[in-house]
Amino acid sequence: MPHDMTHEGVNEEIQRCIEECINCIKTCNYCFDACLKEEDASHMAACIRLTRECADICTYAASAMTRQSPFIVEICNLCATVCEICAKECAEHEHEHCRECAKVCRSCAEACRRMAA
Amino acid sequence: MPHDMTHEGVNEEIQRCIEECINCIKTCNYCFDACLKEEDASHMAACIRLTRECADICTYAASAMTRQSPFIVEICNLCATVCEICAKECAEHEHEHCRECAKVCRSCAEACRRMAA
Amino acid sequence: MPHDMTHEGVNEEIQRCIEECINCIKTCNYCFDACLKEEDASHMAACIRLTRECADICTYAASAMTRQSPFIVEICNLCATVCEICAKECAEHEHEHCRECAKVCRSCAEACRRMAA
Amino acid sequence: MPHDMTHEGVNEEIQRCIEECINCIKTCNYCFDACLKEEDASHMAACIRLTRECADICTYAASAMTRQSPFIVEICNLCATVCEICAKECAEHEHEHCRECAKVCRSCAEACRRMAA
Repeated sequence: MPHDMTHEGVNEEIQRCIEECINCIKTCNYCFDACLKEEDASHMAACIRLTRECADICTYAASAMTRQSPFIVEICNLCATVCEICAKECAEHEHEHCRECAKVCRSCAEACRRMAA
Repeated sequence: MPHDMTHEGVNEEIQRCIEECINCIKTCNYCFDACLKEEDASHMAACIRLTRECADICTYAASAMTRQSPFIVEICNLCATVCEICAKECAEHEHEHCRECAKVCRSCAEACRRMAA
Repeated sequence: MPHDMTHEGVNEEIQRCIEECINCIKTCNYCFDACLKEEDASHMAACIRLTRECADICTYAASAMTRQSPFIVEICNLCATVCEICAKECAEHEHEHCRECAKVCRSCAEACRRMAA
Repeated sequence: MPHDMTHEGVNEEIQRCIEECINCIKTCNYCFDACLKEEDASHMAACIRLTRECADICTYAASAMTRQSPFIVEICNLCATVCEICAKECAEHEHEHCRECAKVCRSCAEACRRMAA
């Protein structure tokens, strides 16, 4: 286990939520990129927008958690909301990258809601 | 003149460069949004990618300048490079939002190069 | 009036809120920097933390508004909360940069609440 | 191995560099926080500034790598520079969190230089 996992006060639940956010950033940005390469990119406009939004808020949330921000509850609630809406949009498309993205976004949303609880 | 323009040590050249970056963020994000609404969004993929990249680095550069980062020279040089490449891509399209974006990116690139000099 | 102020759909209220956020980023980062230079920096720890938090959320909010994010309401509400708490902390200190920061944070909080209404 | 590690085109070297950056964000933000709690916070001002700078550029670099930015080389070079300077500052302090931070920053700098090569 890397040293940073054992910092006092950075408990396991935060660590799991940070990992979920990082996974979500990767998957959303991968989906963003893949959508732009699709022949029907015009049809993917909502997905392209939302994966960018989702990657951005997850980046912000992950960074806030690493610095023990006093606003983690509010930030994780916002992050969960964005992840849920991104998941819903992605779930409407057949592309493998969209289906995967929907799954990862839902998982991140759940981790963020638990974090905020 | 708003109070923040007169803080000691935040000289006029930095202020001008910050304003150029903010203008560039707005224009790149507007172009990003407008490209996604175009019927030929697939054709605009490179533009969509680069306007996002450019808005992101300008956000980072503007933020770094407001906090008097010791890395302003390096950051502004990177920002100029991204702005120049985004401008070049935008200049190849006929859409009014792309032409405008090309102009603003070139102007921001110049301000960043001066800042880094 | 610069071109970007007249983009369709980017209405005046958003523009005002973006300007408030940018002003708040500058002022918070200035206060962050100035607090670190104070002899009693240890006493300023909460202020240093909160001005960083506040500059970060304002950067995120300003960026989200320029890209017409569908989450502007939620983001501006969060930004207002952070600005209010930063203002409250800054108001407890006598330093000129803290008093100024408290004022600008309150003003930004109000603009964000109006935006989110 | 999580799914995101096997995305085509996101090769292992990028993955390693992303992980180094994420580790560096965590460690720098932990050091930032710990420095603010030290009795000699005034003496730690340079460290507080640089750990913030370093966490910010690492966040930007990690995000850029996940979206396959065309500017990865330039961004990783900048990230390496900031990490090296942060490492140098941290290495001058006796606090355990500073020594650990120096080590992680040096490791991240090396990963970024390899990435940019």
